[in-house]
Amino acid sequence: MDIERSPLARPFPNAPQIAGVTPRVTRAGYKDWGRCDLTYIELSEGTSVAGVFTRNVCCSSEVELGRQNVKAGHARALVVNAGNSNAFTGYRGREAVEQIMAQVAEHLGCAPEDVFVSSTGVIGVPLPKDKAREGVANAFAAAECSWEDAANAIGTTDTFTKGAVASAMIGETKINLVGIIKGSGMIAPDMATMLGYIFTDAAVDSAFLQDLLTASSDTSFNCITVDSDTSTSDTVLAFATGKAGNAPLCSFDDAGADAFAAALNDICRQLSHLVVRDGEGAQKFIAVSVSGAVSDESARRVGLAIANSPLVKTAIAGEDANWGRVVMAVGKAGEPADRDKLSIGFGGVWAARQGLPLADYDETPVTEHLRGKDISIEVDLGLGDGRATVWTCDLTHGYISINADYRS
Amino acid sequence: MDIERSPLARPFPNAPQIAGVTPRVTRAGYKDWGRCDLTYIELSEGTSVAGVFTRNVCCSSEVELGRQNVKAGHARALVVNAGNSNAFTGYRGREAVEQIMAQVAEHLGCAPEDVFVSSTGVIGVPLPKDKAREGVANAFAAAECSWEDAANAIGTTDTFTKGAVASAMIGETKINLVGIIKGSGMIAPDMATMLGYIFTDAAVDSAFLQDLLTASSDTSFNCITVDSDTSTSDTVLAFATGKAGNAPLCSFDDAGADAFAAALNDICRQLSHLVVRDGEGAQKFIAVSVSGAVSDESARRVGLAIANSPLVKTAIAGEDANWGRVVMAVGKAGEPADRDKLSIGFGGVWAARQGLPLADYDETPVTEHLRGKDISIEVDLGLGDGRATVWTCDLTHGYISINADYRS
Repeated sequence: MDIERSPLARPFPNAPQIAGVTPRVTRAGYKDWGRCDLTYIELSEGTSVAGVFTRNVCCSSEVELGRQNVKAGHARALVVNAGNSNAFTGYRGREAVEQIMAQVAEHLGCAPEDVFVSSTGVIGVPLPKDKAREGVANAFAAAECSWEDAANAIGTTDTFTKGAVASAMIGETKINLVGIIKGSGMIAPDMATMLGYIFTDAAVDSAFLQDLLTASSDTSFNCITVDSDTSTSDTVLAFATGKAGNAPLCSFDDAGADAFAAALNDICRQLSHLVVRDGEGAQKFIAVSVSGAVSDESARRVGLAIANSPLVKTAIAGEDANWGRVVMAVGKAGEPADRDKLSIGFGGVWAARQGLPLADYDETPVTEHLRGKDISIEVDLGLGDGRATVWTCDLTHGYISINADYRS
Repeated sequence: MDIERSPLARPFPNAPQIAGVTPRVTRAGYKDWGRCDLTYIELSEGTSVAGVFTRNVCCSSEVELGRQNVKAGHARALVVNAGNSNAFTGYRGREAVEQIMAQVAEHLGCAPEDVFVSSTGVIGVPLPKDKAREGVANAFAAAECSWEDAANAIGTTDTFTKGAVASAMIGETKINLVGIIKGSGMIAPDMATMLGYIFTDAAVDSAFLQDLLTASSDTSFNCITVDSDTSTSDTVLAFATGKAGNAPLCSFDDAGADAFAAALNDICRQLSHLVVRDGEGAQKFIAVSVSGAVSDESARRVGLAIANSPLVKTAIAGEDANWGRVVMAVGKAGEPADRDKLSIGFGGVWAARQGLPLADYDETPVTEHLRGKDISIEVDLGLGDGRATVWTCDLTHGYISINADYRS
């Protein structure tokens, strides 16, 4: 089945080289395809690392080892395998990951724990060790590639190549960030997985980098949903080489820390939105903004209940300002809400306020808004100051075609 | 849009009259349609009542009042309006319900609190009081109707009429139960709602009836899902007239209580399955059986995570034994699970055991099973003795057509 490029796609940005980061791609042949499927990214000595990982308890060995190794805070290389997720493969899967870590460690003269590995693709089939070994060896000899090549090679069922850039001034030093990400959907029997990597030449202490990445993820990667399903391999890693030469950032007391945090936030937000824009069958990008909740976390949960509701998502696909389905989704979220204080709008126009349909509600501008590709749903719970925005896409025939019809 | 009768439909059963219960239907004209849309069921004096209601916090006035009135434990009448759910209509909606309660109470010479009202259909439009008043008055004068007529009149977007029967011996007395239910899907801007009513001639104390109904619901109505969305009006009520003449059941110590409980369980199970069989776009009825969980409740949650997973549901629609998606759904349930103890099967054939794909897995019988209409998924978590079964349907193009394409 050919999947068309998402109508919500964004062009790959002009991404600068990041000092201390050398991406290379090669073909390990994990599947019978002609494309590069092994990405090897070398990081200079002294690179700090932070990571966030799937909460799925049936996670892959890559996730288990990554979660463990990120605690030490330093990294020398990243290897990403595409075409085989190595999930649900028991000890044999773990051996394959450990083999890659050892091979790269020997090559670089570093500890195996400094080598991070991700895999995405078919599950239940152990990553073939011979192909991995040969692929990694070839990667050592490959020429440095562009960010777009790397972003392409980590992709699986993505319909477009995803990258983002940001920058900040730390004192007199300009630092750059480049991010690449994959994730969109699945084709049998591959599992949709979000793998994201952020590289910066800034010098950032790994503990502080972890704090910042965790906080940024809470308002980006943890606020997107395509279909409420959570991969067993989702991973986001941030690497900071320090080659820009700024005084290392260790806390928000350091000059430039706010600027760096803002840039990291920005790139996480951009990357997360790109995944939604490639959601299976997506025709519309939907921002759900919830205010008036008892807390930000409560607002986020209400937002996700709306964003995960098949009835809300199909209504948007049908370009219908069906605020009743939004009411329903708010009510089922399991969070504090009061029917008679609830307000709901689309594209900045209130359809219902304080529990009642607006008497003078004019559907014309709302209908116009819903015909577009970028949709907003606003919900005010009228209870407190908590607020959050989550992002999703609509639920269309394309989703069913991709996920159910692949055998026909 | 014409919706075809579900391929999973069941015929309406031969339902006996229940002594003390008189159903009548009439046309209130809540929508511009030619069908009966008001159901009035009179209950003899001394009828006890129990109820379970939606947990959606944005519930309708009907639910608020029903939840309050059921505590007194007695009932004289039930009124069900179809075509207007009266949800999200503030004080005006509440006035309409109170008007119906008062009108029936005056007619029967009972307290308004003995009159139960449900409404289903469009939301955000207060139930028109004039149509309700005239409809109720007409219902008083209408002839007694069949159970099938009543089940038809409470329906909205249902593609078939749903009823179930059961019986039990209490000592030397045979008691009967008849149940009717509606719920299936939605057509803009109507909201899917499950309304179920069970009538028995058994004499059952209302507190005991409530205990039994709550317990039965936990393994029936609370174990089904079509799309994870929860209506603001869902209601199940059980009425016991006592006309069979058995010694009233007050606890499990009473002779025949077990038999009655089993019959109530049976009818709740049947009714809940009928709703799944009419799920929007459903082509397959899916039973998800989870064993080896740390508790029954944990097993139920894992089962619902699987049953609500769009990826699992589309895989079944595609007749694909995609156990990887089941692994993913188990892992995201938020319940204790161990990847390396997990076993997954379809139609009684294990595909993966203890965390690994079976080496001698023969897909042929599984493929055959998945081509049928009644599908089973088995999951053994390998942790404890907790078990549960939940029921759902597949996710197909029909769901999208019903919920997104109605404007085209």
